[in-house]
Amino acid sequence: MALYLVGLGLGSSGYLTRMAMEVIAKSDKAYLDTYTSFLEPELIEELRIILGSRLIEADRRLLEEDVSRIVEEAGERDIAILVPGDPLIATTHISIIIEAARRGVKYHVIHGVSAHSALISASCLQAYKFGKIVTIPRSGVGVETCYRAILENMERGLHTLILLDTADGGLDIPSAIKMLMRVEDEFGMGLITPERLVICLARIGFGDEFRWAGSLAEALERNYPPPPHSIIFPGSLHFSEAEALETLLGASPRVIEQHKPPWIIWQRLQRYIENVENALRGLELIDQSSEVKEVLDLVERYLDDSRRFLSGGRGLDSLAAISYAEGLLDCLRMLGRVRFSWSSRQG
Amino acid sequence: MALYLVGLGLGSSGYLTRMAMEVIAKSDKAYLDTYTSFLEPELIEELRIILGSRLIEADRRLLEEDVSRIVEEAGERDIAILVPGDPLIATTHISIIIEAARRGVKYHVIHGVSAHSALISASCLQAYKFGKIVTIPRSGVGVETCYRAILENMERGLHTLILLDTADGGLDIPSAIKMLMRVEDEFGMGLITPERLVICLARIGFGDEFRWAGSLAEALERNYPPPPHSIIFPGSLHFSEAEALETLLGASPRVIEQHKPPWIIWQRLQRYIENVENALRGLELIDQSSEVKEVLDLVERYLDDSRRFLSGGRGLDSLAAISYAEGLLDCLRMLGRVRFSWSSRQG
Repeated sequence: MALYLVGLGLGSSGYLTRMAMEVIAKSDKAYLDTYTSFLEPELIEELRIILGSRLIEADRRLLEEDVSRIVEEAGERDIAILVPGDPLIATTHISIIIEAARRGVKYHVIHGVSAHSALISASCLQAYKFGKIVTIPRSGVGVETCYRAILENMERGLHTLILLDTADGGLDIPSAIKMLMRVEDEFGMGLITPERLVICLARIGFGDEFRWAGSLAEALERNYPPPPHSIIFPGSLHFSEAEALETLLGASPRVIEQHKPPWIIWQRLQRYIENVENALRGLELIDQSSEVKEVLDLVERYLDDSRRFLSGGRGLDSLAAISYAEGLLDCLRMLGRVRFSWSSRQG
Repeated sequence: MALYLVGLGLGSSGYLTRMAMEVIAKSDKAYLDTYTSFLEPELIEELRIILGSRLIEADRRLLEEDVSRIVEEAGERDIAILVPGDPLIATTHISIIIEAARRGVKYHVIHGVSAHSALISASCLQAYKFGKIVTIPRSGVGVETCYRAILENMERGLHTLILLDTADGGLDIPSAIKMLMRVEDEFGMGLITPERLVICLARIGFGDEFRWAGSLAEALERNYPPPPHSIIFPGSLHFSEAEALETLLGASPRVIEQHKPPWIIWQRLQRYIENVENALRGLELIDQSSEVKEVLDLVERYLDDSRRFLSGGRGLDSLAAISYAEGLLDCLRMLGRVRFSWSSRQG
């Protein structure tokens, strides 16, 4: 007697593992999670045939509210809970094994092929260059968080995988892009632009899978097979990644060549450093005192530090140093000791 | 005729998918990647029995140097390349399908259960809270990058999965921790401390899998089954994650309670802001001129901005503002207009 949390894989029957098949065959009762992700009707039909009356097609309410009853059953018989993908990656079902652990009921987790890794793999990008993964629900709730996550990942050169809702027919790529465009209108960080390189994936793991890379403008116009859909925003591209996007996903060389992540902090630092350099170049000394020269020496030292930190990848240190140098210069100017102007917006 | 890149899953035979089995059965020749990850001897033996003389056990040289010959074969017969995990997640084999695409040879990718998702799932932490994934090789090359990645993920509250080398007997958890301890000695960011909460996973997907959470000090002393091993450094913990670590992975409530990510940028900003506040509190005006007051007003405004940015999560803006305020104050002091002292190290 035990509780088996069984991953069903990507949603088509070919992605069932042998271990999943074995557990399904021997379990006394199997609850099928029909709501956390998409399963092909053929797979559900096959489970119905194999399991017959032992199969319970469960909605969220049943699997989340009847936890203690299900765990109790598993104390007496072999109970399987069948979950799309990997059974714990969404953590929806963790409360069931916590309950089992508390009551001393044995449990086993049978991992499954997860969309998380399959989508990363289908993108042809390097897995260790992905940052935080995000989800956009059909309601659009949290799409600002998603926008910020893409930016934060890009600041570190990382790729962002965006999973689109699969419930109730699912969210499609063009609708998700339009949601992100509305955030761009508000936030204006230059992230969602027509030329922005994106990878569009649909139905990975099914017979009609779709993999394509190109510009956001093109992505909006394309036809896609039905959901599940997902979008990837690449960060910095290694040349081998760029090669794969061109050869395997059909991205045009022009779109790839123009691909520049909006390196917010780096661009900002470069602008700040240039501003201080320009200010120093055009600076007039009104007062030749040694104190003023001492402050200007300090400005030069911090400017050097800022450049050195920037080239060493220490963005925060670089930002602190250059902002401090700006403060020193502005104070000298406000006290009438020097004259200069900032070439562009500061601070 | 086609080229099949087939994922074998976690390395034990139960994790083969039905689609992988089908392709293996029908392929005219199958190259087995024996070097990118660990496969159980029983699985290799089973492949030998199924495939007989059609199986080629390939080392790195064969699969990386003979790419064009293999692709040529796939133009005439069904050729499978069998890869542990998901066949593209490590991108080692992407050059083969790029070559196939260039020559117009059909190719198919059969996804597999990947350690990436299985380990995340086995950790009981939320998948969307993982940041960049890193690897530590047996040689220890790049362990500083790994240390930095953990810190950068933690700064954003994210978890870090560290894959340990599986080649040549693999790298074990205590050895990897010792490597990180040496980086701590050098970098001193307070990341690798005896109390630091870690999750240790070994042989996930095999019969003797090991999952445990606790302090680094305890992790160093434990006995583990043989590699593959991996370590997870949690970022910020949701209460449901903390509950799972306690109940399912045996973490002691004390270790979890003490778990505080070293929020480098936030700690730093709080210190900077306090320094400016203290400097202003203890500040003596030597010169009562309106210019000096104007500069001090500006300091107050930037201090306010910095606090506001910090509480709004805008760390970079907060850092720029507070550093600028420090610059203004230091310049006033150097010109002999005010007197104050920094309570602790600045800049």
